[in-house]
Amino acid sequence: MIIDRYNERARNINSLLCVGLDSDIKKIPKKFLDLKFPQFEFNKYIIEETHEYTSAYKPNVAFYEAQGDQGIKELKMTIDYLEEFYPDIFTILDAKRGDIGNTNNGYIEFVYDWLNFDAITLYPYLGQEAMQPFLDRTDKVAIFLCRTSNPGAKDFQDLEVAGKPFWQIVAEKIGGDWNKNNNCMLVVGATYPEEMKKIREIVGDMTFLVPGIGAQGGSVEEVMKNGANSDGRGLIINSSRGIIFSENPREEAQKLCEEIREYTLLS
Amino acid sequence: MIIDRYNERARNINSLLCVGLDSDIKKIPKKFLDLKFPQFEFNKYIIEETHEYTSAYKPNVAFYEAQGDQGIKELKMTIDYLEEFYPDIFTILDAKRGDIGNTNNGYIEFVYDWLNFDAITLYPYLGQEAMQPFLDRTDKVAIFLCRTSNPGAKDFQDLEVAGKPFWQIVAEKIGGDWNKNNNCMLVVGATYPEEMKKIREIVGDMTFLVPGIGAQGGSVEEVMKNGANSDGRGLIINSSRGIIFSENPREEAQKLCEEIREYTLLS
Repeated sequence: MIIDRYNERARNINSLLCVGLDSDIKKIPKKFLDLKFPQFEFNKYIIEETHEYTSAYKPNVAFYEAQGDQGIKELKMTIDYLEEFYPDIFTILDAKRGDIGNTNNGYIEFVYDWLNFDAITLYPYLGQEAMQPFLDRTDKVAIFLCRTSNPGAKDFQDLEVAGKPFWQIVAEKIGGDWNKNNNCMLVVGATYPEEMKKIREIVGDMTFLVPGIGAQGGSVEEVMKNGANSDGRGLIINSSRGIIFSENPREEAQKLCEEIREYTLLS
Repeated sequence: MIIDRYNERARNINSLLCVGLDSDIKKIPKKFLDLKFPQFEFNKYIIEETHEYTSAYKPNVAFYEAQGDQGIKELKMTIDYLEEFYPDIFTILDAKRGDIGNTNNGYIEFVYDWLNFDAITLYPYLGQEAMQPFLDRTDKVAIFLCRTSNPGAKDFQDLEVAGKPFWQIVAEKIGGDWNKNNNCMLVVGATYPEEMKKIREIVGDMTFLVPGIGAQGGSVEEVMKNGANSDGRGLIINSSRGIIFSENPREEAQKLCEEIREYTLLS
Protein backbone atom coordinates (compact mmCIF):
# COMPACT_ATOMS: atom_id res chain seq x y z
CA MET A 1 0.00 0.00 0.00
CA ILE A 2 1.13 3.48 -0.82
CA ILE A 3 0.87 4.67 2.79
CA ASP A 4 3.41 2.02 3.76
CA ARG A 5 5.96 3.83 1.62
CA TYR A 6 5.79 6.81 3.93
CA ASN A 7 5.80 4.66 7.06
CA GLU A 8 8.77 2.68 5.85
CA ARG A 9 10.80 5.79 5.12
CA ALA A 10 9.75 7.32 8.44
CA ARG A 11 10.92 4.20 10.29
CA ASN A 12 14.12 3.78 8.27
CA ILE A 13 15.47 7.26 8.93
CA ASN A 14 13.48 7.86 12.13
CA SER A 15 11.89 11.06 10.89
CA LEU A 16 8.35 12.39 10.55
CA LEU A 17 9.56 15.56 8.87
CA CYS A 18 7.99 16.88 5.68
CA VAL A 19 9.70 19.80 3.95
CA GLY A 20 7.28 22.16 2.20
CA LEU A 21 8.72 23.23 -1.15
CA ASP A 22 6.83 26.55 -1.16
CA SER A 23 9.36 28.02 -3.53
CA ASP A 24 7.94 31.51 -3.88
CA ILE A 25 10.01 33.20 -6.60
CA LYS A 26 9.93 36.44 -4.62
CA LYS A 27 11.68 34.80 -1.66
CA ILE A 28 14.22 32.58 -3.43
CA PRO A 29 17.86 33.71 -2.96
CA LYS A 30 18.95 36.01 -5.78
CA LYS A 31 21.64 33.66 -7.11
CA PHE A 32 18.94 31.25 -8.36
CA LEU A 33 17.04 33.90 -10.27
CA ASP A 34 19.63 34.14 -13.04
CA LEU A 35 19.37 30.43 -13.80
CA LYS A 36 17.08 29.10 -16.52
CA PHE A 37 14.88 27.15 -14.05
CA PRO A 38 15.09 29.09 -10.79
CA GLN A 39 12.35 27.27 -8.88
CA PHE A 40 13.66 23.86 -9.90
CA GLU A 41 17.29 24.77 -9.13
CA PHE A 42 16.27 26.13 -5.74
CA ASN A 43 14.29 22.97 -5.02
CA LYS A 44 17.26 20.81 -6.05
CA TYR A 45 19.41 22.74 -3.60
CA ILE A 46 16.84 22.37 -0.79
CA ILE A 47 16.40 18.65 -1.51
CA GLU A 48 20.15 18.08 -1.44
CA GLU A 49 20.45 19.95 1.84
CA THR A 50 17.49 18.35 3.62
CA HIS A 51 16.81 14.86 2.20
CA GLU A 52 18.59 12.88 4.89
CA TYR A 53 16.19 14.23 7.53
CA THR A 54 13.09 14.17 5.36
CA SER A 55 10.38 11.54 4.89
CA ALA A 56 8.14 13.63 2.63
CA TYR A 57 8.28 16.66 0.34
CA LYS A 58 5.23 18.83 -0.20
CA PRO A 59 5.29 21.58 -2.84
CA ASN A 60 2.32 23.94 -2.69
CA VAL A 61 1.18 24.28 -6.31
CA ALA A 62 0.16 27.95 -5.85
CA PHE A 63 3.80 29.05 -5.87
CA TYR A 64 4.38 27.30 -9.20
CA GLU A 65 1.14 28.39 -10.85
CA ALA A 66 2.13 31.97 -9.99
CA GLN A 67 4.78 31.50 -12.71
CA GLY A 68 2.30 30.18 -15.28
CA ASP A 69 3.18 27.24 -17.55
CA GLN A 70 6.86 27.78 -16.74
CA GLY A 71 6.17 27.12 -13.05
CA ILE A 72 4.25 23.94 -13.86
CA LYS A 73 7.21 22.77 -15.91
CA GLU A 74 9.59 23.38 -13.01
CA LEU A 75 7.23 21.57 -10.64
CA LYS A 76 7.38 18.59 -13.01
CA MET A 77 11.18 18.80 -13.10
CA THR A 78 11.20 18.80 -9.30
CA ILE A 79 9.07 15.69 -8.93
CA ASP A 80 11.06 13.92 -11.68
CA TYR A 81 14.24 14.74 -9.78
CA LEU A 82 12.83 13.31 -6.55
CA GLU A 83 11.68 10.19 -8.35
CA GLU A 84 15.10 9.64 -9.88
CA PHE A 85 17.33 10.33 -6.88
CA TYR A 86 15.12 9.86 -3.81
CA PRO A 87 12.40 7.41 -4.82
CA ASP A 88 11.73 6.32 -1.23
CA ILE A 89 10.66 9.80 -0.10
CA PHE A 90 6.87 10.32 -0.05
CA THR A 91 5.57 13.16 -2.23
CA ILE A 92 2.49 15.30 -1.64
CA LEU A 93 1.10 18.02 -3.89
CA ASP A 94 -0.57 20.60 -1.70
CA ALA A 95 -3.22 21.62 -4.21
CA LYS A 96 -6.40 21.78 -2.10
CA ARG A 97 -8.59 20.65 -5.02
CA GLY A 98 -11.95 19.02 -5.40
CA ASP A 99 -14.62 19.23 -8.09
CA ILE A 100 -17.59 17.16 -9.20
CA GLY A 101 -16.83 13.55 -10.17
CA ASN A 102 -16.26 13.84 -13.90
CA THR A 103 -14.04 16.91 -13.55
CA ASN A 104 -11.86 15.39 -10.83
CA ASN A 105 -10.45 13.08 -13.47
CA GLY A 106 -8.63 16.12 -14.88
CA TYR A 107 -6.93 16.72 -11.53
CA ILE A 108 -6.17 13.02 -11.21
CA GLU A 109 -4.48 13.01 -14.61
CA PHE A 110 -2.51 16.12 -13.67
CA VAL A 111 -1.41 15.27 -10.13
CA TYR A 112 -1.39 11.48 -9.96
CA ASP A 113 -0.60 10.43 -13.53
CA TRP A 114 1.37 13.24 -15.17
CA LEU A 115 3.23 14.73 -12.20
CA ASN A 116 3.16 11.35 -10.43
CA PHE A 117 2.76 12.56 -6.84
CA ASP A 118 1.94 9.96 -4.19
CA ALA A 119 -0.71 12.17 -2.62
CA ILE A 120 -2.82 15.29 -3.07
CA THR A 121 -4.61 17.57 -0.58
CA LEU A 122 -8.38 17.94 -1.16
CA TYR A 123 -11.47 19.75 0.09
CA PRO A 124 -14.18 17.32 1.25
CA TYR A 125 -16.99 19.90 0.82
CA LEU A 126 -18.55 18.38 -2.33
CA GLY A 127 -19.12 15.05 -0.60
CA GLN A 128 -18.16 11.41 -1.01
CA GLU A 129 -19.87 10.88 -4.36
CA ALA A 130 -17.82 13.71 -5.87
CA MET A 131 -14.56 12.52 -4.31
CA GLN A 132 -15.00 8.90 -5.41
CA PRO A 133 -12.48 9.12 -8.29
CA PHE A 134 -9.80 9.97 -5.71
CA LEU A 135 -11.03 7.34 -3.22
CA ASP A 136 -10.93 4.70 -5.96
CA ARG A 137 -7.23 5.24 -6.61
CA THR A 138 -5.78 2.69 -4.23
CA ASP A 139 -2.27 3.40 -5.54
CA LYS A 140 -2.42 7.00 -4.24
CA VAL A 141 -3.37 8.90 -1.07
CA ALA A 142 -6.21 11.44 -0.77
CA ILE A 143 -5.51 13.92 2.05
CA PHE A 144 -8.64 15.80 3.13
CA LEU A 145 -8.74 19.17 4.88
CA CYS A 146 -10.27 18.56 8.29
CA ARG A 147 -9.03 21.25 10.72
CA THR A 148 -6.72 23.78 9.11
CA SER A 149 -3.99 25.73 10.94
CA ASN A 150 -5.08 29.30 10.13
CA PRO A 151 -7.03 31.67 12.45
CA GLY A 152 -10.00 31.95 10.03
CA ALA A 153 -10.54 28.18 10.24
CA LYS A 154 -13.07 28.82 13.01
CA ASP A 155 -15.55 30.60 10.68
CA PHE A 156 -16.94 27.35 9.30
CA GLN A 157 -14.92 24.47 10.73
CA ASP A 158 -15.99 25.14 14.33
CA LEU A 159 -19.72 25.51 13.63
CA GLU A 160 -21.73 23.14 15.82
CA VAL A 161 -23.56 20.30 14.08
CA ALA A 162 -25.62 17.95 16.28
CA GLY A 163 -23.59 18.96 19.32
CA LYS A 164 -20.22 18.53 17.60
CA PRO A 165 -17.95 20.90 15.70
CA PHE A 166 -18.10 20.58 11.92
CA TRP A 167 -14.48 19.34 11.70
CA GLN A 168 -15.47 16.38 13.85
CA ILE A 169 -18.17 15.34 11.36
CA VAL A 170 -15.57 15.63 8.62
CA ALA A 171 -13.23 13.35 10.61
CA GLU A 172 -16.02 10.83 11.28
CA LYS A 173 -17.08 10.57 7.64
CA ILE A 174 -13.60 10.35 6.21
CA GLY A 175 -12.39 8.05 8.98
CA GLY A 176 -15.41 5.82 8.26
CA ASP A 177 -16.99 5.20 4.86
CA TRP A 178 -14.54 7.23 2.80
CA ASN A 179 -11.53 5.23 3.95
CA LYS A 180 -12.65 1.77 2.81
CA ASN A 181 -9.53 1.51 0.65
CA ASN A 182 -7.32 2.71 3.49
CA ASN A 183 -5.96 5.51 1.29
CA CYS A 184 -7.19 8.61 3.13
CA MET A 185 -5.33 11.00 5.40
CA LEU A 186 -6.44 14.21 7.13
CA VAL A 187 -4.97 17.70 7.33
CA VAL A 188 -4.93 18.69 11.01
CA GLY A 189 -3.23 21.96 11.93
CA ALA A 190 -0.49 21.95 14.58
CA THR A 191 -2.00 25.13 16.00
CA TYR A 192 -5.03 23.22 17.38
CA PRO A 193 -3.65 20.43 19.61
CA GLU A 194 -6.94 19.83 21.48
CA GLU A 195 -8.76 19.29 18.22
CA MET A 196 -5.95 17.02 17.04
CA LYS A 197 -6.36 14.83 20.12
CA LYS A 198 -10.08 14.48 19.49
CA ILE A 199 -9.55 13.67 15.81
CA ARG A 200 -7.00 11.01 16.77
CA GLU A 201 -9.64 9.38 19.00
CA ILE A 202 -12.12 9.36 16.12
CA VAL A 203 -10.01 8.01 13.26
CA GLY A 204 -7.75 5.49 14.96
CA ASP A 205 -4.35 5.12 13.32
CA MET A 206 -5.00 7.21 10.19
CA THR A 207 -2.06 9.45 9.25
CA PHE A 208 -2.32 13.25 9.66
CA LEU A 209 -0.59 15.83 7.53
CA VAL A 210 0.28 18.54 10.04
CA PRO A 211 0.97 22.10 8.86
CA GLY A 212 1.46 25.02 11.23
CA ILE A 213 4.77 24.18 12.92
CA GLY A 214 7.25 27.06 13.00
CA ALA A 215 6.16 30.29 11.31
CA GLN A 216 2.50 29.65 12.25
CA GLY A 217 3.29 28.89 15.92
CA GLY A 218 2.47 25.18 16.41
CA SER A 219 4.55 23.17 18.92
CA VAL A 220 6.24 19.86 18.11
CA GLU A 221 5.73 18.65 21.66
CA GLU A 222 1.99 19.30 21.56
CA VAL A 223 1.64 17.69 18.13
CA MET A 224 3.50 14.54 19.16
CA LYS A 225 1.63 14.20 22.46
CA ASN A 226 -1.80 14.77 20.96
CA GLY A 227 -1.41 13.48 17.43
CA ALA A 228 0.80 10.37 17.43
CA ASN A 229 -1.03 7.12 16.69
CA SER A 230 -0.59 3.74 18.42
CA ASP A 231 2.76 3.25 16.66
CA GLY A 232 4.01 6.56 18.07
CA ARG A 233 3.91 7.87 14.50
CA GLY A 234 1.00 8.48 12.07
CA LEU A 235 2.11 12.06 11.48
CA ILE A 236 3.64 13.96 8.57
CA ILE A 237 4.91 17.14 10.20
CA ASN A 238 5.44 19.89 7.68
CA SER A 239 7.67 22.93 7.82
CA SER A 240 8.08 25.19 4.79
CA ARG A 241 9.35 28.76 5.20
CA GLY A 242 11.12 27.97 8.49
CA ILE A 243 13.42 25.58 6.63
CA ILE A 244 13.64 26.54 2.97
CA PHE A 245 14.16 30.29 3.43
CA SER A 246 16.46 29.99 6.45
CA GLU A 247 20.18 30.80 6.35
CA ASN A 248 20.96 27.10 6.70
CA PRO A 249 18.20 24.75 5.49
CA ARG A 250 20.21 21.64 6.40
CA GLU A 251 20.64 22.77 9.98
CA GLU A 252 16.99 23.76 10.35
CA ALA A 253 15.79 20.45 8.91
CA GLN A 254 18.11 18.54 11.22
CA LYS A 255 17.00 20.57 14.24
CA LEU A 256 13.31 20.00 13.57
CA CYS A 257 13.85 16.33 12.73
CA GLU A 258 15.70 15.83 16.03
CA GLU A 259 13.09 17.70 18.00
CA ILE A 260 10.44 15.38 16.54
CA ARG A 261 12.63 12.33 17.33
CA GLU A 262 12.82 13.36 20.96
CA TYR A 263 9.06 13.02 21.32
CA THR A 264 8.80 10.00 19.01
CA LEU A 265 10.89 8.09 21.54
CA LEU A 266 8.71 9.27 24.41
CA SER A 267 5.44 8.01 23.02
CA MET B 1 -17.01 47.83 -10.87
CA ILE B 2 -16.07 44.54 -12.42
CA ILE B 3 -19.50 42.98 -11.81
CA ASP B 4 -21.00 45.75 -13.95
CA ARG B 5 -19.09 44.38 -16.91
CA TYR B 6 -21.09 41.20 -16.73
CA ASN B 7 -24.35 43.02 -16.17
CA GLU B 8 -23.73 45.35 -19.06
CA ARG B 9 -22.98 42.51 -21.45
CA ALA B 10 -26.02 40.59 -20.15
CA ARG B 11 -28.27 43.61 -20.78
CA ASN B 12 -26.73 44.48 -24.16
CA ILE B 13 -27.23 41.09 -25.74
CA ASN B 14 -30.08 40.03 -23.43
CA SER B 15 -28.39 36.83 -22.33
CA LEU B 16 -27.49 35.23 -19.01
CA LEU B 17 -25.71 32.36 -20.73
CA CYS B 18 -22.24 31.24 -19.70
CA VAL B 19 -20.52 28.65 -21.87
CA GLY B 20 -18.28 26.27 -19.95
CA LEU B 21 -15.07 25.64 -21.88
CA ASP B 22 -14.52 22.20 -20.34
CA SER B 23 -12.39 21.19 -23.28
CA ASP B 24 -11.54 17.64 -22.26
CA ILE B 25 -9.00 16.41 -24.78
CA LYS B 26 -10.65 12.98 -24.80
CA LYS B 27 -13.95 14.49 -26.00
CA ILE B 28 -12.72 17.09 -28.49
CA PRO B 29 -13.56 16.23 -32.14
CA LYS B 30 -10.72 14.32 -33.80
CA LYS B 31 -9.98 17.01 -36.36
CA PHE B 32 -8.57 19.27 -33.65
CA LEU B 33 -6.21 16.67 -32.25
CA ASP B 34 -3.80 16.94 -35.18
CA LEU B 35 -3.32 20.66 -34.64
CA LYS B 36 -0.45 22.03 -32.58
CA PHE B 37 -2.76 23.54 -29.91
CA PRO B 38 -5.85 21.31 -29.92
CA GLN B 39 -7.54 22.71 -26.79
CA PHE B 40 -7.00 26.30 -27.88
CA GLU B 41 -8.15 25.64 -31.45
CA PHE B 42 -11.25 23.87 -30.18
CA ASN B 43 -11.98 26.78 -27.82
CA LYS B 44 -11.55 29.26 -30.66
CA TYR B 45 -14.06 27.29 -32.68
CA ILE B 46 -16.53 27.17 -29.75
CA ILE B 47 -16.09 30.89 -29.05
CA GLU B 48 -16.69 31.78 -32.70
CA GLU B 49 -19.82 29.63 -32.78
CA THR B 50 -21.32 30.79 -29.49
CA HIS B 51 -20.13 34.32 -28.63
CA GLU B 52 -23.17 36.18 -29.87
CA TYR B 53 -25.36 34.38 -27.31
CA THR B 54 -22.82 34.39 -24.51
CA SER B 55 -22.23 36.81 -21.64
CA ALA B 56 -19.53 34.76 -19.90
CA TYR B 57 -17.03 31.99 -20.62
CA LYS B 58 -15.93 29.61 -17.89
CA PRO B 59 -13.08 27.16 -18.53
CA ASN B 60 -12.63 24.55 -15.80
CA VAL B 61 -8.89 24.46 -15.15
CA ALA B 62 -8.89 20.69 -14.44
CA PHE B 63 -9.26 19.92 -18.15
CA TYR B 64 -6.19 22.02 -18.96
CA GLU B 65 -4.03 20.82 -16.06
CA ALA B 66 -4.71 17.28 -17.28
CA GLN B 67 -2.42 18.24 -20.20
CA GLY B 68 0.32 19.59 -17.94
CA ASP B 69 2.20 22.79 -18.78
CA GLN B 70 0.98 22.50 -22.39
CA GLY B 71 -2.63 22.74 -21.20
CA ILE B 72 -1.86 25.80 -19.07
CA LYS B 73 -0.32 27.42 -22.14
CA GLU B 74 -3.44 26.73 -24.19
CA LEU B 75 -5.63 28.09 -21.40
CA LYS B 76 -3.55 31.28 -21.52
CA MET B 77 -3.95 31.42 -25.33
CA THR B 78 -7.71 31.05 -24.88
CA ILE B 79 -8.06 33.92 -22.43
CA ASP B 80 -5.76 36.11 -24.56
CA TYR B 81 -7.99 35.39 -27.55
CA LEU B 82 -11.11 36.36 -25.64
CA GLU B 83 -9.46 39.54 -24.40
CA GLU B 84 -8.44 40.51 -27.91
CA PHE B 85 -11.62 39.73 -29.81
CA TYR B 86 -14.41 39.71 -27.22
CA PRO B 87 -13.27 42.00 -24.41
CA ASP B 88 -16.81 42.66 -23.21
CA ILE B 89 -17.49 39.04 -22.35
CA PHE B 90 -17.00 38.18 -18.66
CA THR B 91 -14.43 35.46 -17.90
CA ILE B 92 -14.43 33.01 -15.00
CA LEU B 93 -11.80 30.43 -14.17
CA ASP B 94 -13.51 27.51 -12.50
CA ALA B 95 -10.61 26.52 -10.29
CA LYS B 96 -12.26 25.87 -6.89
CA ARG B 97 -9.19 27.10 -4.99
CA GLY B 98 -8.51 28.48 -1.56
CA ASP B 99 -5.49 28.31 0.73
CA ILE B 100 -4.19 30.21 3.73
CA GLY B 101 -3.64 33.95 3.20
CA ASN B 102 0.00 34.07 2.16
CA THR B 103 -0.38 31.17 -0.28
CA ASN B 104 -3.48 32.60 -1.96
CA ASN B 105 -1.25 35.26 -3.46
CA GLY B 106 0.16 32.56 -5.73
CA TYR B 107 -3.31 31.77 -7.04
CA ILE B 108 -4.04 35.47 -7.40
CA GLU B 109 -0.91 35.97 -9.49
CA PHE B 110 -1.82 32.96 -11.62
CA VAL B 111 -5.53 33.54 -12.19
CA TYR B 112 -6.03 37.30 -11.82
CA ASP B 113 -2.71 38.75 -12.94
CA TRP B 114 -1.10 36.30 -15.35
CA LEU B 115 -4.13 34.69 -16.98
CA ASN B 116 -6.18 37.85 -16.35
CA PHE B 117 -9.55 36.27 -15.63
CA ASP B 118 -12.30 38.52 -14.26
CA ALA B 119 -13.32 35.95 -11.65
CA ILE B 120 -12.33 32.71 -9.94
CA THR B 121 -14.36 30.07 -8.08
CA LEU B 122 -13.26 29.42 -4.47
CA TYR B 123 -13.94 27.24 -1.42
CA PRO B 124 -14.93 29.31 1.64
CA TYR B 125 -13.92 26.55 4.10
CA LEU B 126 -10.75 28.25 5.41
CA GLY B 127 -12.67 31.34 6.51
CA GLN B 128 -12.71 35.06 5.86
CA GLU B 129 -9.20 35.77 7.20
CA ALA B 130 -7.73 33.27 4.70
CA MET B 131 -9.80 34.58 1.79
CA GLN B 132 -8.97 38.24 2.44
CA PRO B 133 -6.44 38.53 -0.44
CA PHE B 134 -9.27 37.66 -2.85
CA LEU B 135 -11.79 39.92 -1.07
CA ASP B 136 -9.32 42.82 -1.24
CA ARG B 137 -9.11 42.64 -5.03
CA THR B 138 -11.88 45.06 -5.92
CA ASP B 139 -11.00 44.78 -9.62
CA LYS B 140 -11.94 41.09 -9.67
CA VAL B 141 -14.77 38.82 -8.52
CA ALA B 142 -14.50 36.02 -5.93
CA ILE B 143 -17.16 33.35 -6.52
CA PHE B 144 -17.64 31.11 -3.47
CA LEU B 145 -19.07 27.59 -3.49
CA CYS B 146 -22.31 27.71 -1.51
CA ARG B 147 -24.63 24.94 -2.71
CA THR B 148 -23.13 22.77 -5.43
CA SER B 149 -25.12 20.91 -8.07
CA ASN B 150 -23.87 17.35 -7.45
CA PRO B 151 -25.71 14.61 -5.48
CA GLY B 152 -22.90 14.33 -2.87
CA ALA B 153 -23.37 17.99 -1.94
CA LYS B 154 -25.72 16.85 0.83
CA ASP B 155 -22.94 15.10 2.83
CA PHE B 156 -21.67 18.34 4.37
CA GLN B 157 -23.59 21.23 2.81
CA ASP B 158 -26.96 20.11 4.26
CA LEU B 159 -25.75 19.50 7.82
CA GLU B 160 -27.84 21.47 10.29
CA VAL B 161 -26.13 24.30 12.17
CA ALA B 162 -28.23 26.24 14.70
CA GLY B 163 -31.41 25.13 12.96
CA LYS B 164 -30.19 26.00 9.47
CA PRO B 165 -28.42 24.03 6.77
CA PHE B 166 -24.69 24.70 6.49
CA TRP B 167 -25.05 26.26 3.00
CA GLN B 168 -27.30 28.90 4.54
CA ILE B 169 -24.58 29.94 7.01
CA VAL B 170 -22.17 30.16 4.07
CA ALA B 171 -24.64 32.42 2.23
CA GLU B 172 -25.17 34.62 5.31
CA LYS B 173 -21.45 35.14 5.95
CA ILE B 174 -20.51 35.79 2.34
CA GLY B 175 -23.59 37.91 1.71
CA GLY B 176 -22.67 39.93 4.81
CA ASP B 177 -19.17 40.74 6.01
CA TRP B 178 -17.27 39.14 3.16
CA ASN B 179 -18.98 41.25 0.51
CA LYS B 180 -18.00 44.71 1.80
CA ASN B 181 -16.30 45.45 -1.52
CA ASN B 182 -19.28 44.16 -3.45
CA ASN B 183 -17.05 41.72 -5.33
CA CYS B 184 -18.45 38.36 -4.21
CA MET B 185 -20.73 35.92 -6.00
CA LEU B 186 -22.01 32.48 -5.00
CA VAL B 187 -22.12 29.13 -6.77
CA VAL B 188 -25.67 27.80 -6.46
CA GLY B 189 -26.52 24.62 -8.36
CA ALA B 190 -29.49 24.59 -10.73
CA THR B 191 -30.43 21.19 -9.37
CA TYR B 192 -31.56 22.68 -6.02
CA PRO B 193 -34.18 25.37 -6.84
CA GLU B 194 -35.65 25.49 -3.30
CA GLU B 195 -32.22 26.19 -1.84
CA MET B 196 -31.63 28.78 -4.54
CA LYS B 197 -34.80 30.61 -3.55
CA LYS B 198 -33.75 30.71 0.09
CA ILE B 199 -30.23 31.93 -0.80
CA ARG B 200 -31.74 34.67 -2.95
CA GLU B 201 -33.73 35.84 0.08
CA ILE B 202 -30.56 35.93 2.18
CA VAL B 203 -28.14 37.73 -0.12
CA GLY B 204 -30.33 40.26 -1.90
CA ASP B 205 -29.18 41.08 -5.42
CA MET B 206 -25.82 39.25 -5.37
CA THR B 207 -25.10 37.37 -8.60
CA PHE B 208 -25.15 33.55 -8.67
CA LEU B 209 -23.04 31.35 -10.89
CA VAL B 210 -25.41 28.48 -11.71
CA PRO B 211 -24.03 25.13 -12.89
CA GLY B 212 -26.18 22.05 -13.37
CA ILE B 213 -28.36 23.00 -16.34
CA GLY B 214 -28.52 20.36 -19.07
CA ALA B 215 -26.43 17.23 -18.51
CA GLN B 216 -26.93 17.43 -14.72
CA GLY B 217 -30.71 17.92 -14.96
CA GLY B 218 -31.42 21.48 -13.73
CA SER B 219 -34.35 23.39 -15.29
CA VAL B 220 -34.04 26.91 -16.73
CA GLU B 221 -37.59 27.73 -15.69
CA GLU B 222 -36.95 26.78 -12.06
CA VAL B 223 -33.67 28.67 -11.98
CA MET B 224 -35.18 31.85 -13.38
CA LYS B 225 -38.21 31.69 -11.10
CA ASN B 226 -36.24 30.99 -7.93
CA GLY B 227 -32.92 32.65 -8.64
CA ALA B 228 -33.48 35.93 -10.52
CA ASN B 229 -32.79 39.07 -8.49
CA SER B 230 -34.83 42.27 -8.38
CA ASP B 231 -33.57 43.23 -11.85
CA GLY B 232 -34.84 39.93 -13.24
CA ARG B 233 -31.19 38.97 -13.69
CA GLY B 234 -28.34 38.34 -11.20
CA LEU B 235 -27.61 34.94 -12.72
CA ILE B 236 -24.78 33.47 -14.76
CA ILE B 237 -26.27 30.27 -16.13
CA ASN B 238 -23.63 27.82 -17.22
CA SER B 239 -23.79 24.99 -19.70
CA SER B 240 -20.67 23.08 -20.70
CA ARG B 241 -20.95 19.61 -22.24
CA GLY B 242 -24.49 20.22 -23.53
CA ILE B 243 -23.15 22.96 -25.80
CA ILE B 244 -19.48 22.39 -26.56
CA PHE B 245 -19.68 18.68 -27.38
CA SER B 246 -22.98 18.88 -29.26
CA GLU B 247 -23.31 18.42 -33.01
CA ASN B 248 -24.06 22.11 -33.39
CA PRO B 249 -22.71 24.33 -30.58
CA ARG B 250 -24.15 27.50 -32.13
CA GLU B 251 -27.64 26.06 -32.25
CA GLU B 252 -27.43 24.72 -28.68
CA ALA B 253 -26.15 28.06 -27.35
CA GLN B 254 -28.89 29.93 -29.16
CA LYS B 255 -31.55 27.52 -27.91
CA LEU B 256 -30.47 27.83 -24.27
CA CYS B 257 -30.03 31.60 -24.56
CA GLU B 258 -33.55 31.92 -25.94
CA GLU B 259 -35.02 29.66 -23.29
CA ILE B 260 -33.42 31.87 -20.63
CA ARG B 261 -34.74 35.01 -22.41
CA GLU B 262 -38.25 33.64 -22.26
CA TYR B 263 -38.16 33.63 -18.47
CA THR B 264 -36.11 36.82 -18.20
CA LEU B 265 -39.06 38.63 -19.79
CA LEU B 266 -41.47 36.99 -17.37
CA SER B 267 -39.72 38.09 -14.21
